[in-house]
Amino acid sequence: MANITKKVSWSSRTDESGATGEGTPLLNGSEQPQYSRQLPGGGSLFHIGRLSTVDLEEEMTSDEDSLRGRPKEIPHNEKLLSLKYESLDYDNSENQLFLEEERRMSFIGFRCLEISRWVVCGLIGFLTGLIACFIDIAVEELAGVKYQVVKQNIEKFTEVGGLSISLILWAVLNSAFVMVGAILVAFFEPIAAGSGIPQIKCYLNGVKVPRVVRLKTLLVKVFGVICSVAGGLAVGKEGPMIHSGAVVAAGVSQGRSTSLKRDFKIFEYFRRDTEKRDFVSAGAAAGVSAAFGAPVGGVLFSLEEGASFWNQMLTWRIFFASMISTFTLNFFLSIYHEKPGDLSSPGLINFGRFESDSVAYNLYEIPIFIVMGAIGGLLGALFNVLNYWLTIFRIRYVHRPCLQVMEAMLVAAVTATVSFAMIYFSNDCQPLGPDHSEEYPLQLFCADGEYNSMATAFFNTPERSVRSLFHNQPGTYNPLTLGMFTLTYFFLACWTYGLTVSAGVFIPSLLIGAAWGRLFGILLAAISPSDSIWADPGKYALIGAASQLGGIVRMTLSLTVIMVEATGNVTYGLPIMLVLMTAKIVGDYFVEGIYDLHIKLQSVPFLHWEAPATSHWLTAREVMSSPVTCFNRLEKVGTIVDVLSNTSTNHNGFPVVVHMTGSDEPAKLCGLILRSQLIVLLKHKVFVELARSRLTHRKLQLKDFRDAYPRFPPIQSIHVSQDERECMMDLTEFMNPTPYTVPQETSLPRVFKLFRALGLRHLVVVDDENRVVGLVTRKDLARYTLGKHGLEELQLAQT
Amino acid sequence: MANITKKVSWSSRTDESGATGEGTPLLNGSEQPQYSRQLPGGGSLFHIGRLSTVDLEEEMTSDEDSLRGRPKEIPHNEKLLSLKYESLDYDNSENQLFLEEERRMSFIGFRCLEISRWVVCGLIGFLTGLIACFIDIAVEELAGVKYQVVKQNIEKFTEVGGLSISLILWAVLNSAFVMVGAILVAFFEPIAAGSGIPQIKCYLNGVKVPRVVRLKTLLVKVFGVICSVAGGLAVGKEGPMIHSGAVVAAGVSQGRSTSLKRDFKIFEYFRRDTEKRDFVSAGAAAGVSAAFGAPVGGVLFSLEEGASFWNQMLTWRIFFASMISTFTLNFFLSIYHEKPGDLSSPGLINFGRFESDSVAYNLYEIPIFIVMGAIGGLLGALFNVLNYWLTIFRIRYVHRPCLQVMEAMLVAAVTATVSFAMIYFSNDCQPLGPDHSEEYPLQLFCADGEYNSMATAFFNTPERSVRSLFHNQPGTYNPLTLGMFTLTYFFLACWTYGLTVSAGVFIPSLLIGAAWGRLFGILLAAISPSDSIWADPGKYALIGAASQLGGIVRMTLSLTVIMVEATGNVTYGLPIMLVLMTAKIVGDYFVEGIYDLHIKLQSVPFLHWEAPATSHWLTAREVMSSPVTCFNRLEKVGTIVDVLSNTSTNHNGFPVVVHMTGSDEPAKLCGLILRSQLIVLLKHKVFVELARSRLTHRKLQLKDFRDAYPRFPPIQSIHVSQDERECMMDLTEFMNPTPYTVPQETSLPRVFKLFRALGLRHLVVVDDENRVVGLVTRKDLARYTLGKHGLEELQLAQT
Repeated sequence: MANITKKVSWSSRTDESGATGEGTPLLNGSEQPQYSRQLPGGGSLFHIGRLSTVDLEEEMTSDEDSLRGRPKEIPHNEKLLSLKYESLDYDNSENQLFLEEERRMSFIGFRCLEISRWVVCGLIGFLTGLIACFIDIAVEELAGVKYQVVKQNIEKFTEVGGLSISLILWAVLNSAFVMVGAILVAFFEPIAAGSGIPQIKCYLNGVKVPRVVRLKTLLVKVFGVICSVAGGLAVGKEGPMIHSGAVVAAGVSQGRSTSLKRDFKIFEYFRRDTEKRDFVSAGAAAGVSAAFGAPVGGVLFSLEEGASFWNQMLTWRIFFASMISTFTLNFFLSIYHEKPGDLSSPGLINFGRFESDSVAYNLYEIPIFIVMGAIGGLLGALFNVLNYWLTIFRIRYVHRPCLQVMEAMLVAAVTATVSFAMIYFSNDCQPLGPDHSEEYPLQLFCADGEYNSMATAFFNTPERSVRSLFHNQPGTYNPLTLGMFTLTYFFLACWTYGLTVSAGVFIPSLLIGAAWGRLFGILLAAISPSDSIWADPGKYALIGAASQLGGIVRMTLSLTVIMVEATGNVTYGLPIMLVLMTAKIVGDYFVEGIYDLHIKLQSVPFLHWEAPATSHWLTAREVMSSPVTCFNRLEKVGTIVDVLSNTSTNHNGFPVVVHMTGSDEPAKLCGLILRSQLIVLLKHKVFVELARSRLTHRKLQLKDFRDAYPRFPPIQSIHVSQDERECMMDLTEFMNPTPYTVPQETSLPRVFKLFRALGLRHLVVVDDENRVVGLVTRKDLARYTLGKHGLEELQLAQT
Repeated sequence: MANITKKVSWSSRTDESGATGEGTPLLNGSEQPQYSRQLPGGGSLFHIGRLSTVDLEEEMTSDEDSLRGRPKEIPHNEKLLSLKYESLDYDNSENQLFLEEERRMSFIGFRCLEISRWVVCGLIGFLTGLIACFIDIAVEELAGVKYQVVKQNIEKFTEVGGLSISLILWAVLNSAFVMVGAILVAFFEPIAAGSGIPQIKCYLNGVKVPRVVRLKTLLVKVFGVICSVAGGLAVGKEGPMIHSGAVVAAGVSQGRSTSLKRDFKIFEYFRRDTEKRDFVSAGAAAGVSAAFGAPVGGVLFSLEEGASFWNQMLTWRIFFASMISTFTLNFFLSIYHEKPGDLSSPGLINFGRFESDSVAYNLYEIPIFIVMGAIGGLLGALFNVLNYWLTIFRIRYVHRPCLQVMEAMLVAAVTATVSFAMIYFSNDCQPLGPDHSEEYPLQLFCADGEYNSMATAFFNTPERSVRSLFHNQPGTYNPLTLGMFTLTYFFLACWTYGLTVSAGVFIPSLLIGAAWGRLFGILLAAISPSDSIWADPGKYALIGAASQLGGIVRMTLSLTVIMVEATGNVTYGLPIMLVLMTAKIVGDYFVEGIYDLHIKLQSVPFLHWEAPATSHWLTAREVMSSPVTCFNRLEKVGTIVDVLSNTSTNHNGFPVVVHMTGSDEPAKLCGLILRSQLIVLLKHKVFVELARSRLTHRKLQLKDFRDAYPRFPPIQSIHVSQDERECMMDLTEFMNPTPYTVPQETSLPRVFKLFRALGLRHLVVVDDENRVVGLVTRKDLARYTLGKHGLEELQLAQT
């Protein structure tokens, strides 16, 4: 076997797609060393070619495409696509080992598997619910302690007149909490920053985000969010629940923890990307469900973000996990609140009950709601643009962990100061209700029996503030308070999102929206004729909250359902839908949703629902990566080790080709093998020559691959002796013999559809003789986006 | 060009799948006449081969498979798969015409298209809501008239003692209504029988059910359902709404009506299967939404039944249509009820408001709910089995329209008689409420100021009976009444479903369930200790209704959401989910859901979510149909006409192959062309020879194909002269140049996944040199099902 590694190259850029089948492929059937000799020095360029732009200068000179921008100026540009992200493989490698295992499995076996899937989903729901419960109780307790301390201090100094000391105490307390949270995140697990929703979106989209579903991430996330909420930042604890649920799912479903080095030897069948991703969907749904008490919304969130393929049983399992999760939370919280069995708090946030009779809407209010949606869209777009600039600033200048911690502390101190100033200068006193419905009333300079309503808005947990904006009697807040609050909180929340703390943007958005929505309702009642019962400010607060949230995150169906479930009343379905739709349309006109912005800023190769509309003229030939490194069915170990060790390419999938005995004929595709499989084979030394000598040894099984999943050892850790390098490896048994392929004339939308619908990682492009001409991976498809001026192509970058 | 039609045959049945790549294909490259000569007389057998079983005797002798049963005995056996159903094509044919059109379309063009999709969805929702409104009002009015007439008559004869005359009047009235409905269905449009949900399920699954989305079907459906509900049958008007919505969608989205011969020249872009199926999803969702006031449930129904590929924008549009539909219904009904603007009746059925505080459930009730779920599953399975036998009986003996009408009238008369007898012999008198909450009280033999509660249960519209079972005060019904009612109504409903009338099974199921559920609640309260406030019979009625409905239809997530939305209260989410899950598990143990049973009895090639679990050892080679009729790129017109006219095969997709000039080489796949495309080409006489003579003529455009959609003329209607038969047709421009293909070693689940996920109609199977060896269509995949004894293969039949 002289021909060891086949490099099949193809002159790649022919912008005219009309030429079908003309021109013969430039097939290069020569062996590796010869090939290197042909292109001395320039080999790396050729290898990298369309796959990376480490050498930007070279790329720029060799490419005439003027749309590419100037990526040298801004290192983290949304016009870049990072190469550091791998794809998850939703496609099973149906090699002979797999088929043998399937054949051995009886019908009963499949039933048991199905049952264990349900058990896992139940566990996921239960644990997610428990975590939510833990976060909720911890935040409650800490907030209670903080309130007591600060209140006593304020009361002491209100009379003697040294309130600046109270301010300092408050700011220091908050900063301390936030510091702990920020240190956890910045130094231990940076991926735990933020809400985690962008990361989970990416994971469900099929991008392997490093370390996103590790146990350590979960711990940092949970304690980080407790600290940041207790630290009084303008954040919520809901977003992180989704991430937490996903981590729980990824952990439970694998029946082991690599971090803890424990293997429970259960659920071994689920140790592959396909199953894991399904469970992570369930976990994310359980997280949403626990956060908002919205099991159906959770399922829809998972489906909207993740499922490329709807499967009834899977959906039903996801729903089961969601239900268990909200039920668990509800049950344990009811015990904590000393009303066991009273299942009235299904989520971390509870909008309270809107009685439909009292606050039904009228037909003529619908245009008003639509106007509010437009306002929400505008404000949301403003929020996103400001946050986008801020994030770029942070990426450039605030990338050292200690700077990040300091920024977080600064934000905490400023939040406390601003709040304090506003409380200090506000004179919005409200009478204390007879039933003391306010949990944290602060008298300050108000008369006895009254409390400062601005203080309530700032001092409460944001969840409680939202609820009081929805439900408090008309007249509880005066318009000026609301206006000032909206303005301040808007900028605070915008500054806060993207800090190196673990926290979510849902609740701040809702709070901003509820505040200006209520203001809107009050103004509306003021300008309308006297019998203005219809303009209930609580109702407008709800619509405003929906519109602001929609304007920022731009979720659609799932958000509608989440809002409806959180209000516990289906009457508001239509207005909420209209408002979210308007907010999305208006917002999308200016800028994308905040999650998508952050995904873009991370240069993640995210696949949207469809290929860009105007991309039908692009064909697989132009899109694919080539040349492709291929292996023979019977391949020399040395070659395999060399290819795997080549850090400049770092390919993960290799087409396996077969040669006619006439050798002159080019090689035909006969399978696809993954880096991970090759590594396991090398580790177990499955060489043809050794097979004879150890006939008594057990055959390699699928179990061996599963045991190595998901952290396959790097090639460097596998020792292959010089003698072994001369051995041969037979890949026939291990490769996927029927990878999905497309002809090279296939249009981009068609390739995209196949790739997205089946959740592929590698798609082999073949010519009309079934010879490999290229390989399409996620980056090749994610590169094309629809910009303002038509189709744009993103730059690939190694960062 | 001598080689005109390629028949590529392959020895098809090699049950050992382990042999990968061994054995050389038996390629038959000879031309048609020669081929016929080789097999004189037996040619038809060869052609039919695995594609049909018209000649059952021949098939049986030539096939040793013992699993196939004896299809001669029972013509409509669920072990058969009908060949009369075609597949919808969700895959675009990306030929050059299409690419040119896409290229011509600007970015603005795509925007406009998107906007018109929204407009169409809005229209669909609006019209569906209107239809629901019309049905509701018509039924109300007719029921009111009937009640008045019968009531007066009964009151007259209660005293003088000739109640048998009242019975006859009632029975005749009911029979007359039902007769009109049954005649409409049986003689004008038999496809409008039943609820239409099985048909819509099939359509959304990708099966082209003949005449299912025609205007005539809609009219018959609407008037049929009014008649059958007014005729007092044990049916509901909700199921037909789903069908109606689908028809509206299919009509509106095409911008024309073939029945009315009107073409509005709008929405022409949507005239293809892909777009139409998306809109039909929206229509079905709008139907569910109008029926139950459940917009989210509607979206989930559509997704659960149809969408093989989840698309965010599509889902959002579907949701929009649903919202508009329920809103329209609500709005117009509020005007009808003379309370304009009071949006309190979002659906045809309204469960009434369950106030969560009064009837919350406790933890210890959950096991009770699960037991009720199991009962519902058992009763549902019994219902389905009885109905299954009945349907087989009907298929065998009651297939003439006049017999069907007579059966329907008989059922109507029996329903009236049984109801009357039960009312007559019941002595369950209840005091009239002070506020006259009962709309149709009937005094009969009760004391003044009282009414007969059995009469209420039978005389009310079923929707109102359900509501009173949910909400009436404890003590309104006595246990005996409920027990008798359950028993009677169970058998009546079972007999009624499958009659040749247009009617649904949702409401009868709910009613049966509500009755025994309430009975269950009453018994529970009786045996529990005195402080039995927890056992509110209304709550148990709700759970019973959910469980019975789940046991019969076996829907999952969508049904949960529909029930939750119909109750207007998310508190019951968990119990309803648990109950539906239990009912499904218990029921599935015995028999499938009623819709699936009926689909099976129609021998529809329905594709489930996944291939049977144990089918990994089957490969594409065993599954595919072969030989395949292929065309050359440049094909003789005569050959095309002959192939299309061949009624024994009736293929719809033809791979286009290309020959090397060396001619000895077998043909390689280069495209796929559809029968419908060929017919349009023949009609427009797009022949190579004529092209020169009519250079001034306009080129064929995609519009010409759209104009012919969906009712392409049969080949017989196209006249091709003898001279023209000698012309050549160039298919290059019109074929799909990049059809999806799979290698012949691909396992069935893999083929299935590709086929299902992309909604294909034809999937070409190629060998490792890209030569056509077979074609996989829907029937080839739907044939394999998992029976009690492992994998079973269904027989194909021409019926």
